[in-house]
Amino acid sequence: MFNKLCIIGVGLIGGSIARAARKHNLCKEISAYGREQDSANLLRAQELKVIDSYSFDLTEAVAGADCIVIATPVGAMPAIFKQLAPYWSDKALYMDAGSTKGNVVAALQDVFGFIPANFIPAHPIAGAENSGVEAALDDLFQNRRLILTPAEQADPDFLFVAQEFWQTIGSDVSLMSVEQHDAVLAATSHLPHVLAFSLVDLLGKKDETVDIFKYAAGGFKDFTRIASSDPTMWLDICMANKEQIIPLIQELCTELQGINQMLEQNKTQELYDTFTYARNARQRFLDQYQ
Amino acid sequence: MFNKLCIIGVGLIGGSIARAARKHNLCKEISAYGREQDSANLLRAQELKVIDSYSFDLTEAVAGADCIVIATPVGAMPAIFKQLAPYWSDKALYMDAGSTKGNVVAALQDVFGFIPANFIPAHPIAGAENSGVEAALDDLFQNRRLILTPAEQADPDFLFVAQEFWQTIGSDVSLMSVEQHDAVLAATSHLPHVLAFSLVDLLGKKDETVDIFKYAAGGFKDFTRIASSDPTMWLDICMANKEQIIPLIQELCTELQGINQMLEQNKTQELYDTFTYARNARQRFLDQYQ
Repeated sequence: MFNKLCIIGVGLIGGSIARAARKHNLCKEISAYGREQDSANLLRAQELKVIDSYSFDLTEAVAGADCIVIATPVGAMPAIFKQLAPYWSDKALYMDAGSTKGNVVAALQDVFGFIPANFIPAHPIAGAENSGVEAALDDLFQNRRLILTPAEQADPDFLFVAQEFWQTIGSDVSLMSVEQHDAVLAATSHLPHVLAFSLVDLLGKKDETVDIFKYAAGGFKDFTRIASSDPTMWLDICMANKEQIIPLIQELCTELQGINQMLEQNKTQELYDTFTYARNARQRFLDQYQ
Repeated sequence: MFNKLCIIGVGLIGGSIARAARKHNLCKEISAYGREQDSANLLRAQELKVIDSYSFDLTEAVAGADCIVIATPVGAMPAIFKQLAPYWSDKALYMDAGSTKGNVVAALQDVFGFIPANFIPAHPIAGAENSGVEAALDDLFQNRRLILTPAEQADPDFLFVAQEFWQTIGSDVSLMSVEQHDAVLAATSHLPHVLAFSLVDLLGKKDETVDIFKYAAGGFKDFTRIASSDPTMWLDICMANKEQIIPLIQELCTELQGINQMLEQNKTQELYDTFTYARNARQRFLDQYQ
């Protein structure tokens, strides 16, 4: 499919894209770009044969690449786009792998004055609380959803190649608008992460004065798994998509105040109905997920 | 240890206590009590050899038992205590297995005017989102915490037997006051459950108008696992411990409003610090849990 794939940011996602591309013979060569402070991770990526080469010089890393994937935290993308612009190739497919899309498109607009027709924004809905190339897996995207949010002016040929790339590595590809993507992900991913971080922040402070974590069980472990996610990545996501996240946090607080009222006023039937509705709604999610 | 163990309420917890007691030869015979509407579950418990016999007549079920465990939802306990009172045996050990303790002790006080010296309140911190005897496991309590909240007037011999019983089936037994128990569990268990139910209630309604669950991933699945818990059980727990739960929900809303402020005012360092603190706090929990 490609001669040279260049991965910008070889973490869990970038490393897994490289591994999957190699497994499915989608490219002959894989180069990578990273910052000098990430040299240990890049060296490890090369040792693990996730990538063939790396450079701290972006121009060198992307030279001759016909597919470039930007898999850095979303906050780093504007700077990457600026660096890429002078060497932009109209023959290469460019994709990002960020969890938010509005800010990616806005950054492209900022740098280029338009969205390049060969840039196809992509979001693989896969991940783990582990980070870095050591955690990368060649089947991370297998049977996972992937959303592409192509601009109206996107080149259909590049869009087709992008779809094929992700489908070949096992993803179930959906197309949607940038706005729809950011609204959906704010609800199903960003809000739960903020909640998990908030709860563990609150309880962690209590645990410092009175041992409480000692008596926490499996439910707590699963519920808080996503609070072990990378803080830098999640800071970027939250800042990038705050227009969507802020009103959802507000809605959840209103919901929680409603629960408090049911408790205070002994509205047991209402509380039972809420819990039952939630249980059934989760079953609806599970039926689709499995 | 016992001649006849009587389990009142043969669900996940009651059934697992029976299975564990049998596995470790802690009793010769196991009887059970349940309501007529639970006959299918009781019949299944007998077929699975979790129990030897059952009766819809409480007097018959407890006759000759030297250990009685009440493993019903906590809301059903006051009625059970009332029924047990006329046939109370001073030679038997009585325990409950409820997730809240203040209301159990209050119900005993109501019925007896005091807390019987041979009643040792117990809370095995184990469970699963599945319910009913089919889900019962003989090792559900293995390497799990168990909290006893004996009253001051508790008989030390019965307390000793209770401790030994739970330790033999693999539990790590702690003793604490009723108040401490209810405060700790409100934070580590009840609040997360309320949060999970609330989030899935909120998002489930959105999913009804716009498909969002379709794009939810593994993080969402784990985060919401406890929202598949039994609504009746959690209604009882929330009502029983609402004095502890209400202020915690309030605290969490304040925490969430703080996050919203950080987002609105671009306080990125503060947000990063919050996420990092939470991640480290969860690691502290994991280090103890594993």
